[in-house]
Parts: sequence; structure tokens; C-alpha cells
Amino acid sequence: MTLNGINYELLATDENGRHGKITTAHGIINTPAFMPVGTAGTVKAMTPDDVAATGAEVVLGNTYHLMLRPGAERVQKLGGLHSFMNWKNSILTDSGGYQVLSLAKRRTIEESGVTFKSHIDGAEIQLTPERSIEVQSLLGADISMVLDECTEWPISEVGAKASMERSMRWALRCKKTFKTKKGHGLFGIVQGSIFPKLRTESALHLEDIKFDGYAIGGLAIGEPQALMFEILEITTPFLPQNRPRYLMGIGKPSDIVGAVLRGIDMFDCVIPTRSGRTGQAFVRGGSLNLRNARHAEDKKPLDVTCDCEVCQSFSRAYLHHLVKAGEMLAGMLLTKHNLYYYQKLMVNLRAAIIEKRLKKFKKTFFDEQKIGPNLAGEFKMKES
Amino acid sequence: MTLNGINYELLATDENGRHGKITTAHGIINTPAFMPVGTAGTVKAMTPDDVAATGAEVVLGNTYHLMLRPGAERVQKLGGLHSFMNWKNSILTDSGGYQVLSLAKRRTIEESGVTFKSHIDGAEIQLTPERSIEVQSLLGADISMVLDECTEWPISEVGAKASMERSMRWALRCKKTFKTKKGHGLFGIVQGSIFPKLRTESALHLEDIKFDGYAIGGLAIGEPQALMFEILEITTPFLPQNRPRYLMGIGKPSDIVGAVLRGIDMFDCVIPTRSGRTGQAFVRGGSLNLRNARHAEDKKPLDVTCDCEVCQSFSRAYLHHLVKAGEMLAGMLLTKHNLYYYQKLMVNLRAAIIEKRLKKFKKTFFDEQKIGPNLAGEFKMKES
Repeated sequence: MTLNGINYELLATDENGRHGKITTAHGIINTPAFMPVGTAGTVKAMTPDDVAATGAEVVLGNTYHLMLRPGAERVQKLGGLHSFMNWKNSILTDSGGYQVLSLAKRRTIEESGVTFKSHIDGAEIQLTPERSIEVQSLLGADISMVLDECTEWPISEVGAKASMERSMRWALRCKKTFKTKKGHGLFGIVQGSIFPKLRTESALHLEDIKFDGYAIGGLAIGEPQALMFEILEITTPFLPQNRPRYLMGIGKPSDIVGAVLRGIDMFDCVIPTRSGRTGQAFVRGGSLNLRNARHAEDKKPLDVTCDCEVCQSFSRAYLHHLVKAGEMLAGMLLTKHNLYYYQKLMVNLRAAIIEKRLKKFKKTFFDEQKIGPNLAGEFKMKES
Repeated sequence: MTLNGINYELLATDENGRHGKITTAHGIINTPAFMPVGTAGTVKAMTPDDVAATGAEVVLGNTYHLMLRPGAERVQKLGGLHSFMNWKNSILTDSGGYQVLSLAKRRTIEESGVTFKSHIDGAEIQLTPERSIEVQSLLGADISMVLDECTEWPISEVGAKASMERSMRWALRCKKTFKTKKGHGLFGIVQGSIFPKLRTESALHLEDIKFDGYAIGGLAIGEPQALMFEILEITTPFLPQNRPRYLMGIGKPSDIVGAVLRGIDMFDCVIPTRSGRTGQAFVRGGSLNLRNARHAEDKKPLDVTCDCEVCQSFSRAYLHHLVKAGEMLAGMLLTKHNLYYYQKLMVNLRAAIIEKRLKKFKKTFFDEQKIGPNLAGEFKMKES
């Protein structure tokens, strides 16, 4: 146990897959872990109790959204983000950088930080490494992230190098600003686009500064999955074994399985929540589009092999009806199912690592993806 | 106990207030009862478990919406409305008439029924008394309603008389079509606008036909509350004591309290659900508009005297934030609170009748409305 920062124990490995346990001020996070995204102080369409019931032990909060509305100082005044949104487990906050670069109206990047206009009211705001850490501390994050620049893809090696080097200088400024206390930690973020040399350099640089954990950023921005996996294979050997590793913004179920096989411990992504609100459900073998008329009279649950509340209670026909009628309950139920699917995937990945059958798990998972989602209703029968 | 239809027992009276028990094929409905509106097979923004948890023992389903989408025959094929929407308690369906007259694109009323164009796809459809009963039976309603014409207000006495008389002829056709079976009943609907003579005539006419319960229709369409109460005072003496009485589409909490005092047993209204989705919360003394900036840093729950899940877990500040940010959770939580408020009001009204203190209950309720909702946070302190 470390007295300061967050604690991480590596408990089991299989192939390059790792099972561990992170301890923060708000409890334990079993890894590999998936973090639902709680953008503006809510995991969209879910109550915090619903989120916890899916098995989530940590959610992600967006610094950019919360600093603009309701404001970090206000959240602190109201008792911090945990109390504000009534979430009792851990919270990881991002630095705000990614959203500033993708959502804010006009933004300019300088050595000091990023200046931007709010997408809500057009107010001009500066986000520096120091302010990002301050905001995350006001929110009361268990895990804070350094401010970095997430470069676009594709980008030239020269551009990627300059950007990565500035991100490393920002990382150091974040580390200097961050006040370590028990149960609260700061993660560095490896950048360097798709260039092995830059990724290695960045990883080693961060390790010199020393962080509570190490993230891999700048992926999930349109590059092919195989390329992402390659970057992971290049980068992870340069990350310390005794600290958690977080692949930011990833991903689809197959991305997660592939990344766990390559030694990643933590994930966050809007896919299960966002796709739930647009009528998509993740099931064994792939996903279903509930808008499709073929579900209109289908009495089967989304997935007969799923033991979530939604699959125990509602038919595809009903969910199809809700989606077509534009009912809020459609988004609520599909989000609940999708987050359960993701958490169950993590449970199964952890069990596979502990029981040393990760390779077999991978084979079954990708074989089922080949069979496709249309067979999800028939898995039970095939197995019995 | 009747072997056919639904059963009603009058258990206690106080002043003109009545406490009773309706037994349908799907369980008991304690009256006075409030029925949340489940328009298109879902009480908007609520899971059926959430609805049951507020204390609701019956929900209302809209024949018009369900016959257009997903279609009554389809719902039956899928096991009926209870199974389709996973609601285990009773369901009352309206006749479709009210929505046809207010929502459908073009409609013409003739003796045979109403012909209209669907607001969804413009298809021309005829709704006759016979078809309305057939649709409600396909849906599997525990309580069906006769097709009637809800006249506009104001209307001439001549117009109101002609409309009421046609509604009575339709009521008879509905009764003839309805196949009585154990646990399933049919209610007649008193019409006659604001004209005492017509209301009396209508009530007596329906009693001749004999129904499992009697509704008062044609109110909640813009007339002043005092006028509505007057109509109730005129009408209820002509309704049988041994059958439930349902005031359709009503209302605000003060409407309900006033109507219970005048002998009404059942209510339905979209106010708690719709206003929840637009940022309004019902509390002791009135209602709060959560959009209002004065809630932005208010750590108090919506109502410190409320023991609902929302008031135990979330502050006004958080709910204000969710409303401002347009988050689905705002509508989910405010709907949950509002439906709980309504059900708790019914629980309290029933207790007041049983304990013969309805007059005192009424006085306290209306005194608190005068004090206003801004004091809702201070009631606890004042009482202790």
C-alpha cells in the first residue's frame, strides 16, 4: 500500500492480459475495468443506482463540460462531484483537453495552454495544465488526468513530435501542480500518434516524471483497429508493470478484448450509452439495430444468454416499438442493457485471466462475432 | 363478489369522500386512486418497476396511440398490453375518442362513429363504438371505457344535448359489444357539459344500461375549477354508491383533493409526468420550477418532507443542473418524484377518509397551498 496516491495491485496475468485491483478514496476498481462516461455529471439516461447495478466501479466525468456548467467552483461548493451526482464509487476525470479541441467554438493552442470559446455561451476561457488540475481537484476526482493534446490522425511525424513534446512539458506542469493525497492519483498520457519512436519516447518521459497510472491517448480517432493494436504492442512494454494502464476513449467490444490481450487495464467510451440512445443493442456475436422492422413481432429478449434486468423483462418487439415511438424508455432500457453487456464483458475477461484461459476466451469471442448477432437468440439452445 | 366484471367494495366514507377497493383480473386498486398515463405502452421516462414503486396499482393505456402503433392486433399477438409493457398490475384503457378528437389530422363524427386520419402516417381509420371495445379487448384491458364524444367548452345547451344523447347511444352499443368476463369491466361516461339537467339525464341513462363503473367526462378542458366542482356536486348524487366513479383527465393536486371531497374514486392525468419532463416538481404547498436560477446552489432536496428516492438522493441544485443541461435524467427523476407525490397524496387521502379527518386534511392542504412551495423546505423545521 502506498500512503499517498492510489494503490494498484497486479493480481494475475495470462498471456499479456492483466487482472489487478486499484484502490482509491472511493473504493476498489477491479481491472480490466470499463468506465461509463458521465459527461455532464450524469451517465446519460441512467440513475447512479442503475449504473452501479450494472457492476461499474468507476465512472468518467468530463472536465470541459463540468467547468462550463455548472462550474467547478460551484460543484465544489455543493460538496464535490460524488455528492453532487450521488455517485458513491470512484470517479476519473479527463483533463478537458480532448473536448476543448473537438467541441469548443474557436480554440488556439499555445505553450501556456488552450484558449477557447465555450460552446454554451461563447465565453472565452483559458485551460492551462495548472487550471485543468485545479478544476479536477475542485470536482474531487479520485483519478485526475494530465492536460495533453490529442493530435488528429493522420499527422506528420514532425507535427506529432512537436505536439507530443509539448504534451510532455504540460504533463510535468500538471505533476508539479497536483497535490498528492491518499486515495487520489494523477495519470500521465502517452502521445506520439502512430510513430513507434515517439510513443516509446513519450512513455519513458512520463515514467521519469512518475505518475500513479499511465494512459495511452491519441487513439480512437479514426485509425484502423489493427493499427491501434500495433501501437499498444509498441507502447505497453515501456510502461511500468506495477501501475494501471488506461486506453482512452476505447471502444467497441472487440477493441476492448484486443486491448486487454495487449495489457490494458482501463477503458472508457460513449459507445454503449450513445448507441443505446440511438436504438443499438450489444449482444453476443455483435449488435442489433432495434429500429429494424424485423424486430416488430419478435418476442425474444435482446439476448437470451443475457441475465440483465432488460433481457429478463422486455421483448425485442417492445423495444422496437419504444424506439419507433421515440419514447425515452427506449434509450433508458437500451443504455442499461449495453452498460450491463460491457460490465459483463469485463467480468468475463477478468475471470479468463485469473483462470488462465484468455486465449480461449479471445477465440470464442471472435468466432461468435463471425457468426453474427442474428444468432444471439439461439446461443442458449446451441449450448444446451 | 360478482362473478363477472370487476368487483368494488366501499370500505369507508367521511363527508362525501369514499375509500374503496376495486378488484380486477390483475389485482387490487385501493381508491381514491391515481392512474399514471402510459400513453404508448410506457409511462414516459419510467420503467414499469419504477411506476409500481411509486405505489401505482393501475395505469392508463391510450387506445388511440396503441391502435395506430404498434397496433391492437399486434399487441394481442405479443401477449396483450400487460405482457408487452411488462406491467403486472391493472390497466384501464380509454376509448380512443378523446385523442381522435384532439390529435388526429382530420376527423368527422357521424352516428356510426368517428373517421379520422392518423397523425403518424395519415392513414384513414374509422373508430366506432364496436371497434373501440374490440381494440380495448385485444389490448387486454382490465377496465375498458365506452366511446364517447368529449365536447368542447363552452358549448350551447342544444349542442351539448345532441352530443350527450349520441354518446349515450354509443354507450349502449359499447355495452352490447363488450364481452363480460371475470376481472374485466366496462365503464360508462357521463357527459352533458356544464348543464345540470343534461348531466343528470346522462347519469340516469347510464345507470339504466348498467356498467361496472361510471366516469365523468368532458371536464378538464379549460373550465374553471369551481365550475368543475359544481358539476361533480350535481352529478355524483345520481351515480350508484356501489360502483367506482372516475373523473377523467383530472388533474392538479388541488383538483384531486376537491374531487375526492365530492365523492370521486379514480383519476388519471398527464400533469405529473408531463410537468416532470419540463422541469416542474410538485411539493408541499405547490410546485417548483427547476429551471429557475435560484435553485442553482440549493443543497436542499425538492421537498424535505418527502421520502421518495429522488428526495433522498439529489439536491435542487443537481436537478436544476440536469434541467439546464437538457439531460434525460432530469425528466426521469422529476417524473419519479411527481408520481410519488401523487401516489402519496392518494395514500394520505385514503387514510384521512378511514380516520374520519378528511375535512381537516382539506384545510391543511389548502392552507399549505396558500403558504406556497417556497416554504416546502422549511416544513419539517416548523413542525418539529
